[in-house]
Amino acid sequence: MTEQIEQHDVVDVIRAKRDRGELTDAQIDWVVDAYTRGVVADEQMSALAMAILMAGMTRAEIARWTAAMIASGERMDFSSLSRPTSDKHSTGGVGDKITLPLAPLVAVFGVAVPQLSGRGLGHTGGTLDKLESIPGWRADLGNEQMLAQLDEVGAVICAAGASLAPADKKLYALRDVTGTVEAIPLIASSIMSKKIAEGTGALVLDVKVGSGAFMKTREDATELARTMVDLGTDAGVRTVALLTDMSVPLGLTAGNALEVRESLEVLSGGGPRDVVDLTVALADEMTRAAGKDVGRDELRAALADGRAMDVWRRMIAAQGGDPDAALPTAVETETLTAGADGHVEHVDALAVGLAAWRLGAGRARKEDPVQAGAGVELHARPGDPVRRGDPLMTLHTDTPERFARAREALEGGVRISAAAPPTRPVVLDRITAQEA
Amino acid sequence: MTEQIEQHDVVDVIRAKRDRGELTDAQIDWVVDAYTRGVVADEQMSALAMAILMAGMTRAEIARWTAAMIASGERMDFSSLSRPTSDKHSTGGVGDKITLPLAPLVAVFGVAVPQLSGRGLGHTGGTLDKLESIPGWRADLGNEQMLAQLDEVGAVICAAGASLAPADKKLYALRDVTGTVEAIPLIASSIMSKKIAEGTGALVLDVKVGSGAFMKTREDATELARTMVDLGTDAGVRTVALLTDMSVPLGLTAGNALEVRESLEVLSGGGPRDVVDLTVALADEMTRAAGKDVGRDELRAALADGRAMDVWRRMIAAQGGDPDAALPTAVETETLTAGADGHVEHVDALAVGLAAWRLGAGRARKEDPVQAGAGVELHARPGDPVRRGDPLMTLHTDTPERFARAREALEGGVRISAAAPPTRPVVLDRITAQEA
Repeated sequence: MTEQIEQHDVVDVIRAKRDRGELTDAQIDWVVDAYTRGVVADEQMSALAMAILMAGMTRAEIARWTAAMIASGERMDFSSLSRPTSDKHSTGGVGDKITLPLAPLVAVFGVAVPQLSGRGLGHTGGTLDKLESIPGWRADLGNEQMLAQLDEVGAVICAAGASLAPADKKLYALRDVTGTVEAIPLIASSIMSKKIAEGTGALVLDVKVGSGAFMKTREDATELARTMVDLGTDAGVRTVALLTDMSVPLGLTAGNALEVRESLEVLSGGGPRDVVDLTVALADEMTRAAGKDVGRDELRAALADGRAMDVWRRMIAAQGGDPDAALPTAVETETLTAGADGHVEHVDALAVGLAAWRLGAGRARKEDPVQAGAGVELHARPGDPVRRGDPLMTLHTDTPERFARAREALEGGVRISAAAPPTRPVVLDRITAQEA
Repeated sequence: MTEQIEQHDVVDVIRAKRDRGELTDAQIDWVVDAYTRGVVADEQMSALAMAILMAGMTRAEIARWTAAMIASGERMDFSSLSRPTSDKHSTGGVGDKITLPLAPLVAVFGVAVPQLSGRGLGHTGGTLDKLESIPGWRADLGNEQMLAQLDEVGAVICAAGASLAPADKKLYALRDVTGTVEAIPLIASSIMSKKIAEGTGALVLDVKVGSGAFMKTREDATELARTMVDLGTDAGVRTVALLTDMSVPLGLTAGNALEVRESLEVLSGGGPRDVVDLTVALADEMTRAAGKDVGRDELRAALADGRAMDVWRRMIAAQGGDPDAALPTAVETETLTAGADGHVEHVDALAVGLAAWRLGAGRARKEDPVQAGAGVELHARPGDPVRRGDPLMTLHTDTPERFARAREALEGGVRISAAAPPTRPVVLDRITAQEA
């Protein structure tokens, strides 16, 4: 009898949203819990997800949905730490290795950085995949070990445990196969339920916009950023978002070990300008949100003088990695050259991301392995002068039969023009809390 | 690898419809076939069904979707029969027993009536449930037996075989639990795929509109009727639709054996006026669509003089039923009386349907049994004069604990006013083929 009533209720909930109504708190609490328990079936939740995608949700509905996802699992507690916590989340981009230099840089200044990260799916790489190219490094830590490392080293990048927002884990896998990923209320609540459950005191969101990002338009990215900042603020987390450019890849590399190598350049005081700028901008936000007045000059100094690199080495070693080990390289490479003289006008982020993915840097399904050495290495960025025949990029893979499809993805992805294009800033906008 | 490509394709199809695009013929053919084969999962099809419900489909898409559902199974062939075939489909209403007198009446005039029917789910009864209250009667016939009975008796009412449009069977069960029943393209293709696959030469659609019907508004009912007439016409079936009133129940009974009893009154030349009028109107359409010029007077005569009853008796006997056996009656009854003097102004179809369902005449889940004797018997119809204390209706059930919830459903369902209300016609509109 209970089951029959529950079965009846879920269709009422679906119909309410389908008919563009607002779900009640009780309906949201029930449907998220019942889905986690398996009483609401996948085919029912996917219909509801599609209705949410097409009809939208109010701020109150999104907040309640997020709270229900948090309530589906455990909450972590960092209050025993001697330092304030500040976390960062990126919505994902091509060549986005920022977490690697960022976490140790922020930790230099007495802020604990608990980076619970994921593996990549599709054309954007995952932070854990990148770090796993370091020999010996382990992503899976217990809670005790994570807390100890935060206290001792100040930074940890590890896999999120299954106990945080299990409803989200289940719903995310469902959305991935049902064409319902692109629902802003569901994206926002997915990200924020994990960050709020994790218990960070402050959170900086890096919301990407452009061809290589999830959000293709500035309007959508702003809506997502606004929704997440509101959610975090309402839950008592000091939250701020930067809207950043993802029409071109970040830095010169896209691929796991390739991006670790570039991160080490940044931690050695070098590296591409856009990667350094974004690292510093995000570190500035994270330290400020944690109540530390550090400033960008001091942050740049900590990259230049080796303080951030020291934390990096201890962070990698604490998780079993050898910071001095040679990074893996791909078996085969192929170099593409410029077809004309001029300046690089544009390098399309999506084209590079797809090429890296096809070369073996990413996975199509979550159980697929990735190649540590595969990816794309750019030799020129927008604005750089090139001459016909100059190397534009090098493709890396262990499986050379993949070169052809990677080249296909890159067709039209690099434009060369006579004049140098105007310089584009990486950070496009900054979004802070507004009144409820 | 094949599976991976297919998995990828279905998300593209879902996204195309979600973004309000028009699906290609190839996409529709593939997705319906892949769903039938189990390659497209339930959770994917339910997301697509929701997108179709919310974004709609063009006439071309609906026609292709219907063709794909037909192609998922077998087609029947009545061309070996010596008589033309004409079928009727009702979208379902409260007290809608019309098929019972209609099929034998049409058969009197040399038209074969192959009524493949279903069981009821929810507050509208199913034709097979009604006939199963006749001792010995069997709904399941093989194709050979069905054809033989059509040749010898001229009418058959039986269960649709599993081989007709299996994609529809699977999709209908999914829509029922995912809040996606109310999509006009899917309702139309569900009904028409079975009717076209069945191979009838002519088809008359009884599209109900009003509180007790699936379509609550005239606008929706007209759209559904128009869509189905177009689908039938495009597939070479002579198709016409009547829009008929379902704001009040049909006749004086709602319930299985109760409705058989009322049908026998009609076949004996009596019965409530609205049931007789609608039976004759539909028989007129069915005979005309089959090329027979019979006319309403002659049809009424065949009810009055026992010709239709003769076919009924042979039809029931051919399927194992005893036309002379006493019909089952419910163990308990309870009579509700008028609270004031006046005229019955309105009897709400949904209220009566829900009451009959709660008394045991219908089922909540397809595996539930129904009570043969349960239901609602009206003693007064809209327009009838009543005095305070006169019996208004009698509730029948084998399980008297159900009386309370049935009475609840009927609260406010009958209105009594001082003046007699205007008479309402049963047939509201007639919809015929238009140019593609």
